[in-house]
This record gives sequence, C-alpha cells and structure tokens, in this order.
Amino acid sequence: MSQAAKKRPRIVIVGGGFGGLAAALKLKDADVDVTVVDKTNYHLFQPLLYQVAMAGLSPGDIAHPIRSILRQQKNTEVILAEVTKVDLKNNLLQSNIGDINFDYLILAAGAQTNYFGHNDWPDYAVGLKDIDDALEVRRRVLVAFEDAESEKDKEKQKQMLTFVVIGGGPTGVELAGSLAELARHSLVRDFRHINPSTARVMLLEGLPRVLPPFVEELSAKAAEQLKSIGVEVRTGVKVTNIDALGVHVDGGEVIPSSTVMWCAGVAAVPLTKTLDVTLDRGGRVVVEPDLSIPGFKNAFAIGDVSNFAHQGEKPLPGLAPVAMQQGAAAAQSILDDLAGRTRKRFHYADKGTMATIGRSAAVADLGKVKLSGLPAWLAWLLIHILMLIGFRNRILVFTNWVWSFFTYDRGARLITGHRMEAGCPAELTDNVKTESKI
Amino acid sequence: MSQAAKKRPRIVIVGGGFGGLAAALKLKDADVDVTVVDKTNYHLFQPLLYQVAMAGLSPGDIAHPIRSILRQQKNTEVILAEVTKVDLKNNLLQSNIGDINFDYLILAAGAQTNYFGHNDWPDYAVGLKDIDDALEVRRRVLVAFEDAESEKDKEKQKQMLTFVVIGGGPTGVELAGSLAELARHSLVRDFRHINPSTARVMLLEGLPRVLPPFVEELSAKAAEQLKSIGVEVRTGVKVTNIDALGVHVDGGEVIPSSTVMWCAGVAAVPLTKTLDVTLDRGGRVVVEPDLSIPGFKNAFAIGDVSNFAHQGEKPLPGLAPVAMQQGAAAAQSILDDLAGRTRKRFHYADKGTMATIGRSAAVADLGKVKLSGLPAWLAWLLIHILMLIGFRNRILVFTNWVWSFFTYDRGARLITGHRMEAGCPAELTDNVKTESKI
Repeated sequence: MSQAAKKRPRIVIVGGGFGGLAAALKLKDADVDVTVVDKTNYHLFQPLLYQVAMAGLSPGDIAHPIRSILRQQKNTEVILAEVTKVDLKNNLLQSNIGDINFDYLILAAGAQTNYFGHNDWPDYAVGLKDIDDALEVRRRVLVAFEDAESEKDKEKQKQMLTFVVIGGGPTGVELAGSLAELARHSLVRDFRHINPSTARVMLLEGLPRVLPPFVEELSAKAAEQLKSIGVEVRTGVKVTNIDALGVHVDGGEVIPSSTVMWCAGVAAVPLTKTLDVTLDRGGRVVVEPDLSIPGFKNAFAIGDVSNFAHQGEKPLPGLAPVAMQQGAAAAQSILDDLAGRTRKRFHYADKGTMATIGRSAAVADLGKVKLSGLPAWLAWLLIHILMLIGFRNRILVFTNWVWSFFTYDRGARLITGHRMEAGCPAELTDNVKTESKI
Repeated sequence: MSQAAKKRPRIVIVGGGFGGLAAALKLKDADVDVTVVDKTNYHLFQPLLYQVAMAGLSPGDIAHPIRSILRQQKNTEVILAEVTKVDLKNNLLQSNIGDINFDYLILAAGAQTNYFGHNDWPDYAVGLKDIDDALEVRRRVLVAFEDAESEKDKEKQKQMLTFVVIGGGPTGVELAGSLAELARHSLVRDFRHINPSTARVMLLEGLPRVLPPFVEELSAKAAEQLKSIGVEVRTGVKVTNIDALGVHVDGGEVIPSSTVMWCAGVAAVPLTKTLDVTLDRGGRVVVEPDLSIPGFKNAFAIGDVSNFAHQGEKPLPGLAPVAMQQGAAAAQSILDDLAGRTRKRFHYADKGTMATIGRSAAVADLGKVKLSGLPAWLAWLLIHILMLIGFRNRILVFTNWVWSFFTYDRGARLITGHRMEAGCPAELTDNVKTESKI
C-alpha cells in the first residue's frame, strides 16, 4: 500500500474524564485519528462534586464540555454516545448510535456507586458520582430543612434534621464537614420554627478510623476537625440496612434519618463485564505493567476501570492523579508502538493526597510534608484551582470560594427538578413538596 | 380585648417572585406577621432565564433563596408549599401542607406557559417560565447538535439543525438572538461532521411585527439586528400544529424541526380558578383600582395573576416592574388600613421596556429616549445587574457576561438530567442519548 493510501490509526478513547482526557491531550500532535466517546457532553471535575451537592457551586462551575476542551485538536473528534459492549476480538465497540471500530482502544469509562449488592439501598441513600447525583443530594438536603420547618410532630422533625453520611473516605469526610457548616452557619438565620444548627450530621465508617488511606496522625487530625465543626464521627460501624426509617447498624440500633448519603464504595462501570477478561471484585480489569488488557496489546484500561497491581502491595487507588498519569502513559505506549520503540512499564508518581474539612481546614499528605488546618486548605485551594479546566471556571470557582470564606453564604441553594423523578420512593416523595404531578 | 392580648394581623403572600417579594419587603418594619408561601424555595430573576436556556448562565446565578432575601425581617416567615385553593370567604388557603389562615392576602402567584388549549403541544414545544423549563430547553438544544454530529441521514440532520422559536415578544426575540449566536460563534469550532453555523434559527410571530408592544421604529431595528446575526424572522405567521415532524403553519407548510420553543403566551396559574371571581381570558383576576379582589377588601391580586384595567386602554402587561410596583402598593394599602388612612388607587409609573438581541445589541424604549444597538445593551446590562438580588449574584453574572462578551464562550453548556424525564415523548427520547433507563 502506498504511503498516500495508508489510513491513519484510529484511537478510540471511551470516557472523557481525567484519564481519557489526559490520553487525548497526549495524542494532540500525533499522526493518528482520535475519537473520544462519552455518555455525557462534559468533563466533570469530580473532586468538587461535593460542593455542588452542598449548594456551594453550580454544576456549570465544575464541568466543561469535552468538545470545547479538545476544540483545537484537529485530529480529534468527540461523540456523545453510550458504549454498551466492548468486542476486543473484532476491534469494535457497540454503542447506542452504532458500531465504532478502533485500531487502538483506551478504556477510561470510570466508576459508579457501589452498593455491594443491596439493590434497594440506592433509593434511600444517594451516591455522589456525577452531577445528577450531586443535584439530588442538594435537593434532598434542602427539602429536609424545609419539611422540618413546617413539621409539627417532634419525632418526625428530628428524623428530618438528622443527616447520615456513610463512608469515611475523602468524599464522605468532605461532604459531612460541608453539611455541618451549611446547617450551623449558612442556614442558621433563615428559619423561624427550627434551629438548623441543632441538626445532627453523622459520619459512619466501617474501619477503625476515617480517611483510612492517610497516615494515622492525619486521620486523627481530620476526626478532630470534623468534631469541632459539629460532625458526629462513628468508626468501626457496619451498616446492615437503609430504608425509609433511616440507617440500621450492627447491634440493632436504628438511626432515624430521612437524608442518607452513600460514599462507601465505588465499582467499575458494568461495561467491563462485556470485555470477557479477568475482573477483580470491584469489576476492574487486572492490567499488565504497560496498562494493556491481558491478551490484547492494542487495548488499554486506565483509571477507575483498571486494577494496576505492579507497584506496592495494593492496587493503585481510584484517584484523579492516577487516572491522569495512566491516560498519558497509555497514549505514550501507542506513540511508542507507531515509532517502533519499546513500551515502558507504568509507574505512578505519588505526589500526595488531600481532603478538606469544612470551608477552611483540610489535611494534606504530600509525602515528606504533612499539613493540616488552614495551610492544608490553602494548598488544596491552589492545586484545585490550577487543575480546573478553563480559565472562566477558575475565576468563578475562586470567586465563589472567596465569597463563602468570608460570608459562609452558599450561592447555589436551589431546589430544582419538578418533573417526576424516578428512584424516589413514595415515602420520600411525600417529603418532596416541590414535585408537581404531571 | 386588651392591647397585650391583641393578635397581630397575619398577611399571607402567595408567591415569592417580583410582586410578592416587593410586598414582603414593604412590610418589613410593620407591626404585622408576614408569611410568604412559594412552591419553590427561590426567587427567580426571570428576565435572565433565556440565558440559562442558552447555556450562558447557571441557574444559581439568577436565583436566590427566598429565605435568605428575607432573613433579616423578624416579622416574616417563609413556607415551602403549594397552595391548591383560595377560600376568600373563610380567609384561608388550602395547601399540600395544610390550611393557612390569613387576615390579609396578597396573591402574587404569577403566570405559566399558555398553549391556548393545545394539550399535546407542551411535549414538543418547551416553554420558558421557570428554571426547569430553561434547563430542558438547554438540554434539547445541545443534544440536537450532538445528534446532528452523528447523524448520517441528511434530511434528519437538517431537521436536527433547525430551531424554531414561536412568539416574537421580548422573550422570543432574546432567545432566538442568543441561539443564533450560540450556533454561529460559541459552538462553531467544536464539531467535526457538522457546521453549526449552518443551523437555521427561525422566529415566528403572529402579528405583523416583532416586539409588538414597542414602537414601530424599535420593532424594525430589532428585526434588522436579528437578521444580521442570522435569525430568520417571519411575521404574520399562524402556527396550526406542532408535532414530532416540526411546526405546521397556516397555508400548509411544515417546518421540519426537532427543537421548538414556545414563547407565545402566558396565562395566570390555575390557582385563580379556585377564587370564584370574574377572570379574563388569560385567567387573570380583574382587580379594583386599589388592586383588591372585587368583593374582598382584605385580598389583593397583583402581577401576572391580575388584570388592572384602570390606566390606559389596555390592561397593564405582565412585566417585572409592574409586579414590583403593584406588590409595594398592595402592601401600602394594608399599612394604610392599619393606620386608619384611606387607600390610594394604584398608578403604574412606566419607565420603559427593553429587549436584547444577541450579546451586544438591544432595543430600549425609555419613554422620551429610544435606544438601540450597543448603547441600549449597556443600559440593559446596568439595569439588570442593579435589579439582581444578591451581591454575589451580581458579581457572577457580571463576570459571565464580560467573559462572553469578549470570547462568545458559553459557560454553562452542560447536558444534565439523566433520570427519566416525563413529558418527553418517545420520538424525542430517541434523540436524547443522555437518558439512562431506570
């Protein structure tokens, strides 16, 4: 085949999150055709999702259309579609808009909330993996205060003013801290018949301490800071059931609550099951040292759908920096192939992790340096603003934060969504006064 | 009854929009108890709703929780509830949370989209009266471009890239102008298989000119500016049907379109029917010169639910400044009653109207002064920023606008709402790739 007739390799990237985007950006100037497929049209900055849930930011502040981000890359197209099956043997994807062929595949489809087989829990305990989740959490939390304001029955009122966050990892810690501040500061003068600062915010964790991946000293600091802003932290607690009454824990206690948030587990999206390769208990693909899928050198799995167990004792965690480095590495391996070079094995450069507690405190494990309190929060602020995509988003988020910092005010305290919402059982719908029947 | 035992009069205000809020603020220091009832928790700055629909602003930028606005008024409480019936004879309201008694009532419940009896049209033609409407318009518009990008059939692609706005009043003009700019500027480099600037944006108006309430000279300027930014303006056009094919007009022509927006009429909310008094054709209460409901001196109807026909040849239009002045006047009449003064008859001080066309042009009729083009737009910008409630909102909206002015970028281009949406028929749902079946 002559040089002129030779077709460029087509790289298909499934997922426009941190991993997929990093891969696409790496292929920017390559002599390839890149297709990014995502079932939403935006790249979501997930670390700030809890701020949308707690009415501090609007969805548009933390999300950016994938097309805009990749606009300048002439070799790249973006498709809004949902991939339903990955057929590695035939180098094709099945999707709701038809088949998509590839020469190389980078699977970066991410994770979803994992309820560990409890199929009825999602109705009662909302997850926090995407914008719709965040808006649902926001709606339920704000409606709970509204309901309590009109409720005459003291027991019911107490149930409405009890909020339970399940899962003491970074997401749960950030959500609980932010929620306590919402109740004790932002809302406190807005009601006449309830005192929002008497609301109970509880954080339940199964392991002996919150923030298990952090060192013990920082876990302790985080627990301390949480308590000081009004969160009841309970560790070593196993949840046995969640229903309209609230949260049932082992030992038989029932915590009456009408607003439960689930931050206790994620699993790879079900798409991985269609691959026909070995998956771990979380549905993740166990990948080779070069991030490829065993048996298929032209297919990679990165980010939350992958289990990379070639560095340290445990597989790498599902964090944004891991996905970003893996995305870039997978793209590099493709470029190496095309140039006749040997692929490198992937190595994750761990620069540390952080979690915020409330509006001005945090813990940060930066390797040699461990920070807590305000210095940690400032570091967190800086890094997240730099990581945000889009100058406009940076300005807006920065403005919102500066405003909140000085005023405790929450700018996005809207209850939206009057169309009939699926997944909200009758017991909860009765609470939801903004629903209009269509 | 002794002075100490005498109960304060309870003023109940139904609706926290421009009218209701103006009334509540006027009663701030009075020796009364005020209850504001609204079925949403926020005050919505409706003039900017089209910007949320066109992905230029987030909902949180133009809405503000009613509780926050009225936080400082110790005599005022806010209730989230939907009033289902007004019983003037017994001085009470029925609502989904129970009965609410009043000594004085100010009905400020506003308007909703009016399809003039065509009960199937709402599925195909979205209105623009609240945030959920705006988000639905946004979703349909953005998904239409996404669908067209993947669509191989040229006829279907053309239907997807044809947008029809029905109604040439200020709302329709603003929406159409903004949509044309979205297609021709903001989106133009984001797609690989379609050229968004070839999208057709049509504005249909039944009367002989757009912006009928404005003077002819400004209507002509507006039509000119619309055409220059790419809107096809058709006046004297009657719509006979709207369905999955598109818009049918008299004469038999069918305009194939998958995204139709209805800005052609509003009517008072159905609540007015429960009043048992004379209503006009738009469901509005024909009020006395002091804005009271005929036969009931202690009950007022203001804003879009009222028909005030005591000034000029026609009833006052459903505009924000009218509602605001009426709200303050109704509150003043109550204060006059309590002080033993005579009520005044209401007189509307018309300071003018404006409408924007695209991001940097407008027409403004300010009485003696008529502006168009950039000067009109700057006046519009200033007035709307001043009218916005909340300093934070002003900063955010101003930032967004300055950004858009210089970059044409739209900051809130998210397709959200993956839960099953009622009111979206199968023919349209197939277009909606972000829907996941629950």
